[in-house]
Amino acid sequence: MVVANGYFWTAPITALVAVIAAVYYIRWIHRQDRGTEAMIKIQNAVKEGSLAFIKRQYSTIGIIGAVIAGILFLAIDLTRYGGKPYTLIAFLIGVTTSLIAGAVAMIVAADTNARSTEGARRSKNDALVTAFRGGLVMGLLVVSLSLLGISVLYFVYSNWRSTAVPAPQDIIGFAFGASFAALFAQLGGGIYTKAADVGADLVGKVEAGIPEDDPRNPAVIADNVGDAVGDCAGRGADLFESITGENIGGMIVGLTFYLSLTSLGINEKVAVNFIIFPLVARGWGLMVTLLASFFVRLDESEEDPMTPLRKAYNINVIGAVIVFGILIYTMLARPLGDQYGSMALFGFMFGAALLGLFLAWVIMAITDYYTNYHYRPVKSIAEASKTGAATNIITGLSVGMESTAIPTLMIIVAIMGSFIFGERYGALYGSKFAGEGSLISNPVLWGVYASTIATMAMLSVTGMILAMDGYGPIADQAGGVAEMADVGEDVRRTMEALDAVGNTTKALAKGYGMASAGLAALLLFQAYLEDLSREAKGLYGEGHIEVNITNPHILMGALVGAMLPFIFTAMSLGAVGRAAKGMIEEVRRQFREIPGILEGTEDPDYGKCVDVSTKSALREMIIPSLLVTITPVLVGIIFGAVAVAAFIIGATFSGIMLGFTLNNSGGAWDNAKKLIEAGQFGGKGSEAHKAAVVGDTVGDPAKDTSGPSIHVLVKLINTVALVFIPVFIYFDKSFNISDLFDKLGL
Amino acid sequence: MVVANGYFWTAPITALVAVIAAVYYIRWIHRQDRGTEAMIKIQNAVKEGSLAFIKRQYSTIGIIGAVIAGILFLAIDLTRYGGKPYTLIAFLIGVTTSLIAGAVAMIVAADTNARSTEGARRSKNDALVTAFRGGLVMGLLVVSLSLLGISVLYFVYSNWRSTAVPAPQDIIGFAFGASFAALFAQLGGGIYTKAADVGADLVGKVEAGIPEDDPRNPAVIADNVGDAVGDCAGRGADLFESITGENIGGMIVGLTFYLSLTSLGINEKVAVNFIIFPLVARGWGLMVTLLASFFVRLDESEEDPMTPLRKAYNINVIGAVIVFGILIYTMLARPLGDQYGSMALFGFMFGAALLGLFLAWVIMAITDYYTNYHYRPVKSIAEASKTGAATNIITGLSVGMESTAIPTLMIIVAIMGSFIFGERYGALYGSKFAGEGSLISNPVLWGVYASTIATMAMLSVTGMILAMDGYGPIADQAGGVAEMADVGEDVRRTMEALDAVGNTTKALAKGYGMASAGLAALLLFQAYLEDLSREAKGLYGEGHIEVNITNPHILMGALVGAMLPFIFTAMSLGAVGRAAKGMIEEVRRQFREIPGILEGTEDPDYGKCVDVSTKSALREMIIPSLLVTITPVLVGIIFGAVAVAAFIIGATFSGIMLGFTLNNSGGAWDNAKKLIEAGQFGGKGSEAHKAAVVGDTVGDPAKDTSGPSIHVLVKLINTVALVFIPVFIYFDKSFNISDLFDKLGL
Repeated sequence: MVVANGYFWTAPITALVAVIAAVYYIRWIHRQDRGTEAMIKIQNAVKEGSLAFIKRQYSTIGIIGAVIAGILFLAIDLTRYGGKPYTLIAFLIGVTTSLIAGAVAMIVAADTNARSTEGARRSKNDALVTAFRGGLVMGLLVVSLSLLGISVLYFVYSNWRSTAVPAPQDIIGFAFGASFAALFAQLGGGIYTKAADVGADLVGKVEAGIPEDDPRNPAVIADNVGDAVGDCAGRGADLFESITGENIGGMIVGLTFYLSLTSLGINEKVAVNFIIFPLVARGWGLMVTLLASFFVRLDESEEDPMTPLRKAYNINVIGAVIVFGILIYTMLARPLGDQYGSMALFGFMFGAALLGLFLAWVIMAITDYYTNYHYRPVKSIAEASKTGAATNIITGLSVGMESTAIPTLMIIVAIMGSFIFGERYGALYGSKFAGEGSLISNPVLWGVYASTIATMAMLSVTGMILAMDGYGPIADQAGGVAEMADVGEDVRRTMEALDAVGNTTKALAKGYGMASAGLAALLLFQAYLEDLSREAKGLYGEGHIEVNITNPHILMGALVGAMLPFIFTAMSLGAVGRAAKGMIEEVRRQFREIPGILEGTEDPDYGKCVDVSTKSALREMIIPSLLVTITPVLVGIIFGAVAVAAFIIGATFSGIMLGFTLNNSGGAWDNAKKLIEAGQFGGKGSEAHKAAVVGDTVGDPAKDTSGPSIHVLVKLINTVALVFIPVFIYFDKSFNISDLFDKLGL
Repeated sequence: MVVANGYFWTAPITALVAVIAAVYYIRWIHRQDRGTEAMIKIQNAVKEGSLAFIKRQYSTIGIIGAVIAGILFLAIDLTRYGGKPYTLIAFLIGVTTSLIAGAVAMIVAADTNARSTEGARRSKNDALVTAFRGGLVMGLLVVSLSLLGISVLYFVYSNWRSTAVPAPQDIIGFAFGASFAALFAQLGGGIYTKAADVGADLVGKVEAGIPEDDPRNPAVIADNVGDAVGDCAGRGADLFESITGENIGGMIVGLTFYLSLTSLGINEKVAVNFIIFPLVARGWGLMVTLLASFFVRLDESEEDPMTPLRKAYNINVIGAVIVFGILIYTMLARPLGDQYGSMALFGFMFGAALLGLFLAWVIMAITDYYTNYHYRPVKSIAEASKTGAATNIITGLSVGMESTAIPTLMIIVAIMGSFIFGERYGALYGSKFAGEGSLISNPVLWGVYASTIATMAMLSVTGMILAMDGYGPIADQAGGVAEMADVGEDVRRTMEALDAVGNTTKALAKGYGMASAGLAALLLFQAYLEDLSREAKGLYGEGHIEVNITNPHILMGALVGAMLPFIFTAMSLGAVGRAAKGMIEEVRRQFREIPGILEGTEDPDYGKCVDVSTKSALREMIIPSLLVTITPVLVGIIFGAVAVAAFIIGATFSGIMLGFTLNNSGGAWDNAKKLIEAGQFGGKGSEAHKAAVVGDTVGDPAKDTSGPSIHVLVKLINTVALVFIPVFIYFDKSFNISDLFDKLGL
């Protein structure tokens, strides 16, 4: 059996190159100066807090993960693999890899913050480059560890099992592990960061009247730790899951091609390209990101720090276009199309890739439009603040909901466009090559693969997005260090400018995260159908499984799905409220019991606040996470495997809408406040400002906890469904409502 | 051809009885004393304002309606009926009937308000009964006019066309007309009422510091008009649409049975029962409502005014159980089942009816739980207000989202339960009767009909719900009259108690409205599929049409659908914001330019405020309404008729979630404020109270404009789709993406 060829090996090799580059950057960061003693002290406190959270969070995840691993072994490995622990091992490796990437990202963020502040004492460029490289470490590690994990597992399992054909579906446990870790990381991190943030703001800024990031605020370290916990570890795990799911999903979809092509006599070494293409494209895409990252540099200190980041991103997109062009031609079009028109094959697949990259680019522009205060939406919120908090909130909700329109339409354009390309030209090629009615003249087959290529292309810039996203919390922390260590007005102002850019990149990364989650979910949905079809061996009809929503048994699955993101959001919003309450009480207690704090004569107990946030985040993350993990399984058992497909669609679509709404409302509220603070609509301290603060506080959990957790949700339900296919089939075979009625004598 | 039998005639007759009863109650109300001169003056102002709004709104609707009628004639009547204006006429009658019901309800509300206040000077019971009878007029008229319109049109058209079989699908224009009128009435009314409310509150209460309903407030009349415009005319049109859609949808589903049964040799006079059953059940259900309404009466003046309303509702539910039992047995089970077990047939259909009524009952209980301040959710919002407006908003959103869970699960239980009953026992009966493989041994056919019966049963209490809902704004206005006309503390307190009950009934009606809209939409979805299948004559495959969402062409329809309620809500929330701004400016202008107002020496210009609200409501309602009307048509033209089915489901499910969230968040915020005003968590004037006022103001457009408009949306898209079936088929036949590529030479 051929599971790989020469192309394949470039995937783990490029991944290793990226790991080496990440290590290089870590060492480079460590070589930078940490600045004054005050700065070092703060940095240490943030790092300690981060480590404390990681340690506790990872133990919790470990315990729950062990239970789930046990269930996986019993439910899947015993039935599907005769007791060989494929799923168990893949799951554990998935969890571990994702957590390692997140932990390293957080620690690097903590290591980088003061060094970026120190860099600002030399030049804006030094501060920017230092912070960006800290973020880049995350971007490189997340993508490369996912890629390494997948390629090693795929190769080892395929050889270990020695099945007749490659079996990418065997490593789906890895994607489930990544999803599982991501949910806990994103939700726990989101609760942590917002509990700390709200606590620090409400008691410190509002009640005690001390400025942001003031060292007298007991929650200040927890707040800074929170930035890394939520934005680094959280978003890192989110996108780790996206690319992992997309890779494995793409491989499962590719397997269908492999089977069709080899049955037509095509050489296995060529056919396998369709399976390994996602891995190879990911690896070379990562190399492009590495190259593009060299362009992050400020030539003049007066320049907008967003400019070099935008430049690097654009270069990355162009590079990705080239990489996709080369790989599609050499791996897919040329070897298949020699006699039957390789250019036609190349044309439509490359068109699909362009659509995916165009989507990535548009989503960023739209997110910017809805959350940047240069444009109409944020301005309208700021203006509405003049008539009070209520109109601020109403307008913000309206803006968030409105922001679903263009991303949704663009997702439709990308998916439909690529699908139609594939349907038409793939099928034309297929019938020329193997005759009408042959397997590979099926338009749907090609349509799905073209959509897969669009999804892969969109996700090929993930490394850069993550680097920009990871830059955000580092700049935020560095700003905190500048504030607390009192390093002078100039440095503070530089860091404020960098922090503002970080807010933009964080917002953009969320828009990208939501759109890519939607695409990854739809790809996993196809993978679910194809895998289910192969496993069920005709139980749900021959050929492609149909998900016919005129059947209420199936339709109700979609209704449960549509409900899930709402319930989950209700829980995550409620969790932040409860966790923040605990933090508020702790900060109030410290101010009350340690009177020296506010005079600056006594140090507050930072550790206690870190502890409060940690504990409540861990407590609150468990039930929503289990809800999301268990619901797909219950739907499968009660309504059947096909209803799970409808469930996935219901949850994905409702999740996309709610996710965009929460992310963009939150981002817009944030920047409406900043716009007013910049002096518009009454300026700082006005009634409008007070109203905008309310909006910002509402937006915080929306954009940093609930919204991003929905990204994870829509992928997690897919990986759960993929893993539990054997269980669903078992119940569909053995359980029937009619039998139940018969038994009851009705 | 047999289109009706003896049962049929009871439908228009019971409808006429209800109309006569409504006229009787109108005359009874007019006979009541209008009270002091001050009261009469206020009543006249409210009535004038209501009439002014109706006149203007109806002209706008008339103009747009005429355009749409023209389009319908060209697009549908010319192609489907060879130029005979069936759809045109049905549409116009639908619009007119719905508007008449709404207008009468509003005028009666205005006529009743002062009379209820005057009643309060005698006894609480007199006030309650007067206000309730005002609401009852709406309940009776809405249901009976819908029923009259449908039965007359159905009978006339069926005879006019003299087709071989009854043709309920010919009158779908009536349902579309009702949807169209409902959207404008609910959205326009919702914008009007909230613009007036927010304007009156923000400038009058907050800025000028005068109490609610103070005659010095220029917006006070507009505010009181708004109650009738939004809650009477709006909800009336909403439920007019629900029952109309449900009736016609049920008849279209019944037609499938008629065709199957007659092809098996069953007498047409019996088979037609399946078509006319919804009409007959609706008519007798209305009689039950009429009877149950006699039980609204307070025995002791100390009693909670909610008690008699709840009693009447429960009696209505029990009566509906009996009516359904009798009608199912005599019309459906006995004539069909004589030799093959009529009790089995009766049993499952009656079981389905019980599930529907149970759903109606549970939805009310759940809505009460989430919006009444005796329970945990509202208390948690009130408590969160202690830490400010932001936590109030977060908790309120969380509560609203959480409130989607149980209603959704209950909808699933009702639909799945009835469907499974139908599948099993109907199919058993069918194969005994006509052999395996015969048309009526198809389980899906019976399942769908059983779900239809559940939906009909749920909607059979609509008259009572509307009476309770219509009572709300009357009590609200009557409270306003008591406040403005200064009739003494006792009367004021009585009216406050009645008004509080009115808030509860309004909230319950919204919960019921959303759930019934969801069920009606799902029924119309089935009707769409069955009608499409008949019209398309095999274009989408033989037999039942499948809506297979694994096909991206269809799946993307669902994605557009999921987006629509979000965009629509963004627009409606934005509209309220803009309209309120205009009102705020007008009230401020009057205070500034007429200094005598606040001293009470000069009368404010009430008319100008009414005018401002009217104009902005009419301006703002047009674009969102057109969006919702055009989108299904575009989806059909671009993606095809089957994608429209997926679109409907996407919009319905996303709409259900968003609708429950907006309605229940709004209701909960409202009552959290009331709970604090009752002295809890700091009481009136505290910081918590200020925060709760913010929540209440956010909740106002959520629960009175956006949420209820979503009820209308989910039905409207169905009726649009049903009407435009010939257009979709035309495009599906004549347009093909491949041809386009060919033409472009690609």
